[in-house]
Formats: sequence, structure tokens, C-alpha cells
Amino acid sequence: GEDIVYRGQIEPNPVVRPWYNMSLRVPPPQSLREALKVPDRYMFGPGPSNVPPRILEAGARPVIGHMHPEIFEIMSDIKSGIQYLFQTQNKMTFAVSGTGHSAMECAIFNTVEPGDSVLTAVNGIWGERAAEMAERIGGRVNAIVAPPGGIFTNEDIEKALSKHRPALFFLAHGESSTGVLHPLDGIGQLCHKYNCLFLVDSVASMGGSPLHMDQQEIDILYTGSQKVLNAPPGTAPISFSERACRKISSRKTKPLSFFLDFNWLTNYWGCDDKPTRVYHHTGPVTAFYSLRESLAVLCEEGLEASWERHRTVAEYFHAGLENIGLKLFVKDKQVRLPTVTTIIAPHGYDWKEITSYIMRTHNLEISGGLGPSAGLVLRVGLMGCNSSRTNVDMVLSALTDALQHCHRSKV
Amino acid sequence: GEDIVYRGQIEPNPVVRPWYNMSLRVPPPQSLREALKVPDRYMFGPGPSNVPPRILEAGARPVIGHMHPEIFEIMSDIKSGIQYLFQTQNKMTFAVSGTGHSAMECAIFNTVEPGDSVLTAVNGIWGERAAEMAERIGGRVNAIVAPPGGIFTNEDIEKALSKHRPALFFLAHGESSTGVLHPLDGIGQLCHKYNCLFLVDSVASMGGSPLHMDQQEIDILYTGSQKVLNAPPGTAPISFSERACRKISSRKTKPLSFFLDFNWLTNYWGCDDKPTRVYHHTGPVTAFYSLRESLAVLCEEGLEASWERHRTVAEYFHAGLENIGLKLFVKDKQVRLPTVTTIIAPHGYDWKEITSYIMRTHNLEISGGLGPSAGLVLRVGLMGCNSSRTNVDMVLSALTDALQHCHRSKV
Repeated sequence: GEDIVYRGQIEPNPVVRPWYNMSLRVPPPQSLREALKVPDRYMFGPGPSNVPPRILEAGARPVIGHMHPEIFEIMSDIKSGIQYLFQTQNKMTFAVSGTGHSAMECAIFNTVEPGDSVLTAVNGIWGERAAEMAERIGGRVNAIVAPPGGIFTNEDIEKALSKHRPALFFLAHGESSTGVLHPLDGIGQLCHKYNCLFLVDSVASMGGSPLHMDQQEIDILYTGSQKVLNAPPGTAPISFSERACRKISSRKTKPLSFFLDFNWLTNYWGCDDKPTRVYHHTGPVTAFYSLRESLAVLCEEGLEASWERHRTVAEYFHAGLENIGLKLFVKDKQVRLPTVTTIIAPHGYDWKEITSYIMRTHNLEISGGLGPSAGLVLRVGLMGCNSSRTNVDMVLSALTDALQHCHRSKV
Repeated sequence: GEDIVYRGQIEPNPVVRPWYNMSLRVPPPQSLREALKVPDRYMFGPGPSNVPPRILEAGARPVIGHMHPEIFEIMSDIKSGIQYLFQTQNKMTFAVSGTGHSAMECAIFNTVEPGDSVLTAVNGIWGERAAEMAERIGGRVNAIVAPPGGIFTNEDIEKALSKHRPALFFLAHGESSTGVLHPLDGIGQLCHKYNCLFLVDSVASMGGSPLHMDQQEIDILYTGSQKVLNAPPGTAPISFSERACRKISSRKTKPLSFFLDFNWLTNYWGCDDKPTRVYHHTGPVTAFYSLRESLAVLCEEGLEASWERHRTVAEYFHAGLENIGLKLFVKDKQVRLPTVTTIIAPHGYDWKEITSYIMRTHNLEISGGLGPSAGLVLRVGLMGCNSSRTNVDMVLSALTDALQHCHRSKV
């Protein structure tokens, strides 16, 4: 080796071999000599959903800098697209560089300080996860709990707001684990009566079901890229109301995460009034390309048309399921999520055999339950471009086939 | 509208208009009617670097489920590829679903508990950011500080370890803000003498400069996808030694972030010994495809060949810079980062005019300083496929051109 003397390394430890004397101990793995293999299948589970070629191609455009003017332009387009999607005028609207869970943490980390009271509505997995996140950062968390498939009345919610006086109330609009679309009307107003921020998770519902962030007085709203938007997972649109911003700007402590810090993120996204943007993190530029494209697709169709399409396709699907003798997990038609349908796991069958059979025989993903609905349901997601009568027919025929061919116990 | 009665919504607030009476208030933005425009340029800044078509194409393959067997196979290949790249046998090796900053937080959030003593080596921006992250979560942070461009002797480090008795010591291997490649020999051993974990940031250096995680006794090591690996930004390889795992498993408190929780992440990546994987977050599957492809490219060339290529190209570049009258910011040849070169901002010029001129005239990104090096330097990154003599010649000719055509004050 060469005679390398590090500056100032006065007394090198004789036991330590310098790097130039070290040989590789770990060989390159054999597996990476094989070409990447990716199957093309129908993604009719609760997400991610299929990504149309147009959006995949957008994500394969050349990488540019995360601080180049062209990416700021693309980010500005994304911001406008999210404002339309969310129906909000909020300046503080952007996309988190992560999946829905990152956005959930971004919302909670920025609005909750240690010791703050937090109320979560738990009627599936998402309320549980929000509670866990708030607890980890020192929130005093209370929950109102409904059985899987259930919802809360505004009276239930007001009682809990009045009792716990939370700084933040979490509710999942689309409870993808149970297939519930929670009513939102009046809840924002109730929260504000009790000086509480209203945080809504719309990962599974956004774009597939009516939601008006400003008119419904939602303070923090987020979704994911991989559901109705039909982009790959990896970015998460989010927006903060002025009321949420006031809570954030009156914080006594810094948010625990630098990566998710609201002030840094909104500066990077050009949402604040500062003249220059400071380097925060390296934005996932190609994921921004595909997110922009997915928002463009949605704008072309129009929100109301998309809502209506999801509604009518879901009704057609639900009627079809009952026709083949299956039962819907959510009894009340008015609170059925149009994007993700939960079907009571057919009596006498092993649900895992059904999903495996359908994947193997029809190259089609549907899934079992999640969290509190595990073992109870089958879940079918028809989101964005996947929401069509043709796809419903395909799922119904796959289910019919599975019920004929999977093992049925003689109970 | 239809006559919708929500279950249990006994006393609807008459002031609140239900969603089906609301009309859209925010129109679709005009900007999204225009096609996505992305320029193709030479990305010779400190990152992201250019992504070869092969890797972009991998990332445009169809989306599959984040829990499908095929993605677990791909994640397993990624894990093996990272073990090779890092030269480690650590079981707890995976990729964070985020950029380098997420990985930095993943390392710190999991190994530091409130009240733990943390030591950071600050000789550029990365040590400052690590200090900020550790402080936010309640670490008692001390720093050793060197001027930008400087390094620390093992004596400096031992003195600080002995004084502050930290649980974690942070050092940037590749200080991309200053262009310094920090020596690592003996530091892991020193840390372990003082019962301290050794955390190394190799975002800018990994794959471009020798590093042997196990032999150099590094406890936590991470990098980014968008530098030498030439994948788009959005994933961050990371690995934890057994010593780091012991610290994590003896925690008294849960890590503050659910999204970055080591136990959840290592289960999702199949690193633990549990028989099943539990849904944690929706992995960015297409980003995993491109990360796998980038690791395959690196394995094809071989680590040592890649190190040698970056070394010789950097030497050729540095000699060429001196030939055209420019001065390198890092005086000591032995601690120059081969991937990112810092050039003293030419006397009498406005550095911004130089970088803008080169972008405009040569379609080529080089950048100014960052953090403590802002205003002091120009930075040129030649990483992964960009590290070639042809590209060096291109940069040298662009710089020569800029020095001739940019405004020079008569000082």
C-alpha cells in the first residue's frame, strides 16, 4: 500500500488495520446477477392500486436537482393540484416525502407538544396508529372507540371533546381496514367550538368520495399517492389550515423531527413568505413527477366526476356481491367507503385460501382484513383508474370461481 | 339532494351544510393542463446525480403490493446488495423509505433516548444537522468543532469521548458541504473503548471511497440512493451492528417515531427472526426497484473497481483544476472526498454568476457551498456513472469558459 499519513493522526492504534490494507470480506450477492423480475397484476386490494403507463412514464423522466427552478415549478403545480383535490385555499399545502404514515406523523409531530391532550376516534386501525404516534411523542391520548365497521355520532364526539378538551382530534374519513366512510359534516365546527384542531386521514377516500376541506372546517388533511391518485407509493399530499398554523407557530418546543418540521417543509415548498428557499432535504424528484401527473389526470376528469364514478361503480359492485351470496361488512349503505369494500369472510371458507386462489388463478390481488378486521373480512379496492364496471365484473367472476373451487368445511 | 340520514346523527347542526349541498370552490389549476416538462441535464452538483436509463426504467415497472412475495424477494436482494456495499454481515440491514435525512433520523431516533449523551463531530453541515436532530429528541448534545475543510485527530476524538462519555458519536465520512473525506481508522475501536456507538454518515462517500463497516467497527451506517448509486432520491440504505441492536433492545422508552421504529422496520424487511411480517407502512415499491437495479450495477463493476475509478478520476480532475488556475478548498490530498470536490470560489468573481453561466451555457449543474461553506466554494460532484475523465474534461472546459465570460471585478 501507499504511505498514507493522516493529518494529526499522531498515535495510530497499532491494532487497527488501516483501510488500504483491508480486503473485501463480503462478496457481491449472486441474486443481484439476475434481472429484476416484476409481475404485472390487477391491484384490487386496499392499495397500492395500479399505476397507468402515463404516470409510470412521468416518474421515469430524468432526475433534476431538488432545488432547480424547474422542480419548484413542478412542486407549485402539485401544490395547486392538491388545493383542488382537497378543495382548500390553504397556503400551507404540499406533499410529504414519504408515505401516508409519514404524513400522519407530520400532522401529529407539528401540532402536538408533549403534554397536549389528543383525542382519537378508533373504529379501525388508523385511529389506533394515530393514538400510538401521539403517545410516543408525549401526548396525553384519549380515544373514543367503536367496534370495527362502526361510526361515531356527532353527539359522541361532542361529549368526548367536552370531557377531554383535546388540542387535536383525529378521525379517519376512509377507514380502509373496515370499509367505513365516516361522515364529516359538523365535526369541524364542533372541534372549533371546543378550540380543538380537526385532523382527518383521507388516505383511502380522497378523490373517491366528496370532501371539502375548507367548507368542512378540517384543519389538517392528508392522503397518499398510491390510492385513488394511482401514483406509486412514496409521496403524501397534506394541508394545514390557518388555525393549525397558529397552533404550530405558538409552540414552545421544536417539533421532534427535523425531517418533518413544518417550517422547514413549507419553506422548501415555497408556501411561506420568505424570499429564498433553504436546503432541507433532497426531495424525491421523480416521485414528484409522477404525483404531478396523477393530479393532472384527476383534474382532467374533474373531482365531481371522479366522486360520481366511484359511487356508482361501488353501488354496482355491492349489488353484484349480494347477488352472488356475499354479505357486506358495513350494513349502512350511507357509510360504505366507495373505494375499499369490506366483504364478510364467507362462512365455512379459509379467507387466505380465497385470496391465494384468486391471486394464483386470476392474477388479481384482493386482501384479507387488517388490524381489528383481520380474519373477519375480505377487502377489495377499486380506486382511481381501477374503479370501473369491467373491473367489478372481473372481481365478481374471480370471487364466484373461488367460492366454487376453494375448500368449504361442512359446518 | 338525496335524503341522507347518518346513523345516530340525532341532532344535526342546522348551520352546517351537508357535503351533498356543497359545490366546488376551488377550480382545477390551469397549470396542470400543460404537459410535464423535465429538462435533461448534466447533474454534476453534490447530488442527486444522473440516473442511467437502465435504473430509470427499473423504477417504471408496474407497481405490486408492498407485502407481496415478489417485493420481499426484491427487498432481500437489496439487503444483500447493501451488505456488500457496506461490507457488513449485519442482519439488521435494510433501506429506509425516505432520503438521507430520514436515515439520519432513523439512526438517531432508535439509538438515543431522552437524556442520553450524544457527541457529534462538526466540520461542515452534517454534524450540525445530527446535533439538531439529537437535541430535538432530548439528547444531551456536545460537539467537537473543526473549521470547514478540517478534520479531527483520533486524539481529539478520544479526549471528547473521555470527557462527555456519549452513548453515540456521529461522524460524516463524506462531508459534502466541505469536500472532506474523514479518516475512519481506529475511531470505531476508540468509541467501543468508551462504550459508545459509532454512527457514520456516508451519504456522499459510499461506493466512491473505501469503507469496511464491520472491520472498521462502525455501529450504524447509512447512505442515500441518489449519489454514487445513481438511483433517484427517495430510499436510504442503513445497517445496525449487534452492539447497536443491544442498545436499542435495552431502551426504556419507545422511539419517538412509529414510522422510523427499528423493530417495525426490521420486521418489515424480514431481518428479525419472526415468522411473519406485519404491515407497517406502504413501502415505495418502485423506488425499491430502482434501488435494486442500482445495487446490481455496482455489483457488476465491483466495489474495489468503483473506489479506484472514483479515486483516479478525482485525481485527474484535481490536477486539471490546478492547471486552469483554480485552488482546491481541502489542502491535504489524503482527505479530499473523491466524489464531491470543493473549489475555492475564484477571487474577484461572483460564484452565483459562474454556476448560472455554466447551467445556462453548458446545461450542466455545479453548485455553490452549503452551510458553513456557503459563499466560500464551488462544488462539483462526479458520482457513480458520472465519474469519468470525459465528464472531468467537460467540467474543466465549462469552468474555463465561465472564467473567461463571467464578470471579474478589478480588485
